[in-house]
Amino acid sequence: VHARGVALAPGVDLQTVAARTPGMVGADLANVVNEAALLAARRGAEAVEARDLEEAIDRIALGLAKKSRVMTPAEKERVAYHEAGHAVVALSVPHADPVHRVSIVPRGVAALGHTLRLPTHERFLLTRSELEDELAVMLAGRAAEQLGYQGVVSTGAADDLERASELARQMVTRFGMTERLGQLTYGLPLAARFLPLTAEERNYSDDTARAIDEEALRIVEDACQRAHEILTSRRRELEKVAAELAKRESLTRDELDRLLGGATEPRQLEALLPSHVA
Amino acid sequence: VHARGVALAPGVDLQTVAARTPGMVGADLANVVNEAALLAARRGAEAVEARDLEEAIDRIALGLAKKSRVMTPAEKERVAYHEAGHAVVALSVPHADPVHRVSIVPRGVAALGHTLRLPTHERFLLTRSELEDELAVMLAGRAAEQLGYQGVVSTGAADDLERASELARQMVTRFGMTERLGQLTYGLPLAARFLPLTAEERNYSDDTARAIDEEALRIVEDACQRAHEILTSRRRELEKVAAELAKRESLTRDELDRLLGGATEPRQLEALLPSHVA
Amino acid sequence: VHARGVALAPGVDLQTVAARTPGMVGADLANVVNEAALLAARRGAEAVEARDLEEAIDRIALGLAKKSRVMTPAEKERVAYHEAGHAVVALSVPHADPVHRVSIVPRGVAALGHTLRLPTHERFLLTRSELEDELAVMLAGRAAEQLGYQGVVSTGAADDLERASELARQMVTRFGMTERLGQLTYGLPLAARFLPLTAEERNYSDDTARAIDEEALRIVEDACQRAHEILTSRRRELEKVAAELAKRESLTRDELDRLLGGATEPRQLEALLPSHVA
Amino acid sequence: VHARGVALAPGVDLQTVAARTPGMVGADLANVVNEAALLAARRGAEAVEARDLEEAIDRIALGLAKKSRVMTPAEKERVAYHEAGHAVVALSVPHADPVHRVSIVPRGVAALGHTLRLPTHERFLLTRSELEDELAVMLAGRAAEQLGYQGVVSTGAADDLERASELARQMVTRFGMTERLGQLTYGLPLAARFLPLTAEERNYSDDTARAIDEEALRIVEDACQRAHEILTSRRRELEKVAAELAKRESLTRDELDRLLGGATEPRQLEALLPSHVA
Amino acid sequence: VHARGVALAPGVDLQTVAARTPGMVGADLANVVNEAALLAARRGAEAVEARDLEEAIDRIALGLAKKSRVMTPAEKERVAYHEAGHAVVALSVPHADPVHRVSIVPRGVAALGHTLRLPTHERFLLTRSELEDELAVMLAGRAAEQLGYQGVVSTGAADDLERASELARQMVTRFGMTERLGQLTYGLPLAARFLPLTAEERNYSDDTARAIDEEALRIVEDACQRAHEILTSRRRELEKVAAELAKRESLTRDELDRLLGGATEPRQLEALLPSHVA
Amino acid sequence: VHARGVALAPGVDLQTVAARTPGMVGADLANVVNEAALLAARRGAEAVEARDLEEAIDRIALGLAKKSRVMTPAEKERVAYHEAGHAVVALSVPHADPVHRVSIVPRGVAALGHTLRLPTHERFLLTRSELEDELAVMLAGRAAEQLGYQGVVSTGAADDLERASELARQMVTRFGMTERLGQLTYGLPLAARFLPLTAEERNYSDDTARAIDEEALRIVEDACQRAHEILTSRRRELEKVAAELAKRESLTRDELDRLLGGATEPRQLEALLPSHVA
Repeated sequence: VHARGVALAPGVDLQTVAARTPGMVGADLANVVNEAALLAARRGAEAVEARDLEEAIDRIALGLAKKSRVMTPAEKERVAYHEAGHAVVALSVPHADPVHRVSIVPRGVAALGHTLRLPTHERFLLTRSELEDELAVMLAGRAAEQLGYQGVVSTGAADDLERASELARQMVTRFGMTERLGQLTYGLPLAARFLPLTAEERNYSDDTARAIDEEALRIVEDACQRAHEILTSRRRELEKVAAELAKRESLTRDELDRLLGGATEPRQLEALLPSHVA
Repeated sequence: VHARGVALAPGVDLQTVAARTPGMVGADLANVVNEAALLAARRGAEAVEARDLEEAIDRIALGLAKKSRVMTPAEKERVAYHEAGHAVVALSVPHADPVHRVSIVPRGVAALGHTLRLPTHERFLLTRSELEDELAVMLAGRAAEQLGYQGVVSTGAADDLERASELARQMVTRFGMTERLGQLTYGLPLAARFLPLTAEERNYSDDTARAIDEEALRIVEDACQRAHEILTSRRRELEKVAAELAKRESLTRDELDRLLGGATEPRQLEALLPSHVA
Repeated sequence: VHARGVALAPGVDLQTVAARTPGMVGADLANVVNEAALLAARRGAEAVEARDLEEAIDRIALGLAKKSRVMTPAEKERVAYHEAGHAVVALSVPHADPVHRVSIVPRGVAALGHTLRLPTHERFLLTRSELEDELAVMLAGRAAEQLGYQGVVSTGAADDLERASELARQMVTRFGMTERLGQLTYGLPLAARFLPLTAEERNYSDDTARAIDEEALRIVEDACQRAHEILTSRRRELEKVAAELAKRESLTRDELDRLLGGATEPRQLEALLPSHVA
Repeated sequence: VHARGVALAPGVDLQTVAARTPGMVGADLANVVNEAALLAARRGAEAVEARDLEEAIDRIALGLAKKSRVMTPAEKERVAYHEAGHAVVALSVPHADPVHRVSIVPRGVAALGHTLRLPTHERFLLTRSELEDELAVMLAGRAAEQLGYQGVVSTGAADDLERASELARQMVTRFGMTERLGQLTYGLPLAARFLPLTAEERNYSDDTARAIDEEALRIVEDACQRAHEILTSRRRELEKVAAELAKRESLTRDELDRLLGGATEPRQLEALLPSHVA
Repeated sequence: VHARGVALAPGVDLQTVAARTPGMVGADLANVVNEAALLAARRGAEAVEARDLEEAIDRIALGLAKKSRVMTPAEKERVAYHEAGHAVVALSVPHADPVHRVSIVPRGVAALGHTLRLPTHERFLLTRSELEDELAVMLAGRAAEQLGYQGVVSTGAADDLERASELARQMVTRFGMTERLGQLTYGLPLAARFLPLTAEERNYSDDTARAIDEEALRIVEDACQRAHEILTSRRRELEKVAAELAKRESLTRDELDRLLGGATEPRQLEALLPSHVA
Repeated sequence: VHARGVALAPGVDLQTVAARTPGMVGADLANVVNEAALLAARRGAEAVEARDLEEAIDRIALGLAKKSRVMTPAEKERVAYHEAGHAVVALSVPHADPVHRVSIVPRGVAALGHTLRLPTHERFLLTRSELEDELAVMLAGRAAEQLGYQGVVSTGAADDLERASELARQMVTRFGMTERLGQLTYGLPLAARFLPLTAEERNYSDDTARAIDEEALRIVEDACQRAHEILTSRRRELEKVAAELAKRESLTRDELDRLLGGATEPRQLEALLPSHVA
């Protein structure tokens, strides 16, 4: 059932593949076939042959071997630092959602840890100040890594950077929040992208594209800088949270409060992006 | 029924998902499955697996928790300001449609409030003056926020900016209303975009694209400036309408008239855009 | 029958919608469903829900209210001016088709009026002089509005501008009628655009695109200027035709002749574009 | 049977249309429906309604009225001049195919006349000299019009320009026949364009695109200049062939020979482009 | 059976077409219908009509008449020169595959002659030196024509240029073989082009595209220059092989050896490109 | 069964092809048909004819003849050098995965040899230092060839260059690892590329594209330089491993250790890229 849509050369038998790969579950087999199809495509072949499957099994088996999903102590420490950065900045800026839980238990495939913030109600609109706070929280993981590892950053912030960049670009092109690009919007409306009408061309010039790049970069760098400054001034709290997190793997809001010597003061509880921003 | 078109890995059972999410309605389940498909796609997987669904349930549940759809007092005040801006400018410019109702009751997913204007008859054509009035009304919500919140604007104007930008670009590229771009039209005719013929390339140069950007930006900024000036000169009326709106949530034309001390004078009732402009 | 191709969320019932919208005909219902689908897409939803339909009904009903399709006196006057411009220039240039009827009765959705010119036979080719006359006639509606309304133009000329621009671009890129771009053609052949072969890239440089823009703009502006000059010199005839048209709504060739004091002299009857130009 | 693929609004009845258009044949009806679909699309409507059909009938009927397909004397004279240009240059350059027939009887929709040249055998390759002769013949129609009409050219050369331009671009980008672009090829191989693989981007820079434009333009202009010079020096023969053609509408090779006072000397009979050039 | 997928207007009968074209085989009929569809598309028509078929028959018949597929003596001489160039350079550079057969018998539609080189074993990798030899052999046909015909080149080298250009571009963008572009690769991986994922944009700048153009051009021109120098220094052998080839149409390796006065020395037998290069 | 999707001209019989190609297996036949379809497409034909098949058989047979898949001694030596480069650099940088096996036995179609490195556990994130080590290992094959062959590099490093380039571009555009491009991300998110939504335009300017090119090039060139320096300083080990590999074709980690005079010291075992990087 995993080879639908993939042409197999005559004589190639998926049963044999299954028999030779006893340790694999269904999804692994699917990966084998996909990998083999990729190899066949690279060869310029029209169909998957036995040798493609053999090489694919090698590759997937190798991959499975390393899927133990246990972080090394060094990794745990870095992830703890990263998440502590999110938590401490979220506790420091005026408009971020209250922190609900910080954790370094890997969840899903991309997330190594997470800082859950639980808004008390739906936000209908977000001001520029609130968006800047949100950006600072998003980029605080990277800022913490910069601080704790002498600037040697990691891939762990890739998702944060992507979300922050998307938001910064929207501030420039959708929300009219920069002096330079003004209140004009740029690019296809979001709604239009989902309608199967026709592919319209990019509706702005290359100079405008450069201005958008520069403004979005400035917004992201400013937020990163701000997160860095907050964490520098609250370095001891950052270290404390990171250390505790590395030890206990997960901290609730109450535990965070106790750890930081008293309830972190209540602030406006409102920062998640409304659906049309996400 | 919500997982059509999404491949599920063997062993993944939607019944179980439904059983574990008693508080969710059909559409929420669909969102869970979509979210899971997105997560699976991010992993590079071909099919949705149990862990994708689990993480997706977490995310959606979090989202539902905040869907109370009650605005905070601060939000209500800002939306009231925003809508009051639309209403006061609509009452001030010579060619806008008469205001029928102003409201800050959220409607649909994007609209936080609305200012309904009811034209008395279909408009067959619109002059440049009428379009400029329309733009000023469209951008008055943002101008009111700038005025009332010391320039700290919000995402609440995103739809207004998009509509105003689309109209400004049409004034430049379709209606021949600028000196610089002249009476030539630019880009595919609107009608052609809906015909499944072939994707033609953008039919103008990058220099022309820059000129279009600059002219459309100027038109939008001028309209925003004009709305700002009107609201500055009628600041007291703006405050009055905003305050009343925050209190009563909805105002009819009659209530607006009573509030502003007399019937707002009748003007030409004609401003909605004809269908080929929308 | 109007919701084909649009996914409806469970529990959403089109019968109920029809029941609630007694004043709507079939096409209006289709518009409701389309509008709702658009709203759902904006929400990021997979299916149309009840609230989308409700908001859509509001919007469409509002639209219908203004579809009285009766022009205001001000509009009628402007359209009469616009069409009189087409007619007077068509009667003045040497190569335009003879005018058959001028009318300000709206026809279809876009046309507010029309100036029917009836060629006596198919034209097989058009000279540069004939094309220039055709362009002057096309742009005469706008020129008349400029003249009669102190330069405050309207959206009423949008279709004229689009057709004139398309023709001007063809003169530059297909017919080799400019010194600067020479006898080379630019862009995909028209025929190729209708064949489902493959999407070829734009086959000329950005500098060439700019030259095409500049030459096409010059051609259109020259034609507009020429129409303007003709109408300035025949201002009294323009006013007479416009006034009579506003009063009687439609004028035949004979009525035009009587109005202008004698048969407008016969000229070569040949100006409609051949099919490969349209 | 002509409305397949076009959605009709409820209540719209094609039988009625057919009944109202007795003079139309099947293809005309198809055109009516297509025209109506276009009008509906312009309105933004999902289906064709009665008013669309009515307006479409008006338009098509107007079109049919002029489809008498008889050229005016002025047109005949110009087409005769145009074709005589092709014939005389074909008889003058060393490598063109022998002329078989010259005619000004319209054939098909685009061709107003034709100059048939019958190669005696398939050409396997073409030298740069032969291509230059071919280009001169292709552009001789336009050159003849320039000569005979004081530079006032017409749309009649559009197909010639397109074919000449395509060939000139191939000389630059496929055949390595310019110093400046050298022996490198540019753009997707012709064969690849017909394979449903994937859309590759344009594989050269904008500077290179400009160089291609300039070189192709130079080649076409040189060929046009050459045709012009040949026709200037053989002006009397051009006039003679054009006059005879206007009178008799079609001339065979023998008639051409008699007209020009003796057999036009036999030359290498080889000029049609091989299939991979077309 | 040849008109599948092409809409025929009512009253158009393919049987009649078949009856009128007794000399045509099935494939010719298919060509007639395709040609007619193209003509109809050019007219903007929805369906093929009788007049389209008539004109198409004319065109195809004309084409068939010249498909005698016999080269003229002049063509034979040029093709012989061209192939002799390939053979002599292949025998001169250190790393080319051994020549197996040289022929001027047309094969397929594009190849006028061919120089078969038979590698003794699969090549797993190719060095920069070997690629440069391969390029010199590829471009030797054109270099021979330049030499033998005073620089008047022909379309006969089009396929050679295309293959050489593709290889030169790969040396720049895939194999990291230039100083200027370094070891970075540019553009989509070859494998990705065959996967129906999504159309990614060109991933490099216009400046980079220009550098690629310039480097690829330099590589191709250098190879052409090298082939030219080799052939200049071995002019007598070139003439001898070309003359013999024109006479006998095909030469085996043994015949080549005898002709050139002794066995051409054995060299490394390895030059065909590996599959991932083709 | 191999000609599905390819139109065959009437009279063309695949059975005959099969009969004439006794030495071919099913996949070879498929290649013949595909090759023939390509040839037909080049001819502009709609269907595959006998002559296409004949020429295709010639080509494929030629290809099969050389598929002996035995490397020459010169090739073996170069591949051994290349793989020894990977192994020695992997043993030298602090963060690379431990080498498990080095081999010059061709595997699959592209890989001439391989250096298997077996991570002991899944890596959840990678630091900039670790990525730089990974890049140095990836590029060590090319560096070894430069060292051992006086700078005459080969196509053997094509896959290495592609993977290193993809990683370097991600460091610039996804991981925010350069000063110049900052923490902003560029281009569509990876996840979005797999969703069949809509083709969004490249979301950055040409200047930004150039900066990305320059930074990615710098990263790759630095890594290549670093690999070169490591191999220069460990030249004797490189030679030893290459020689042994050429002799024995495959070396395990233990054999490598013995060869290099003692266990290569244990280092952090962690270098394979996480799935979201591949």
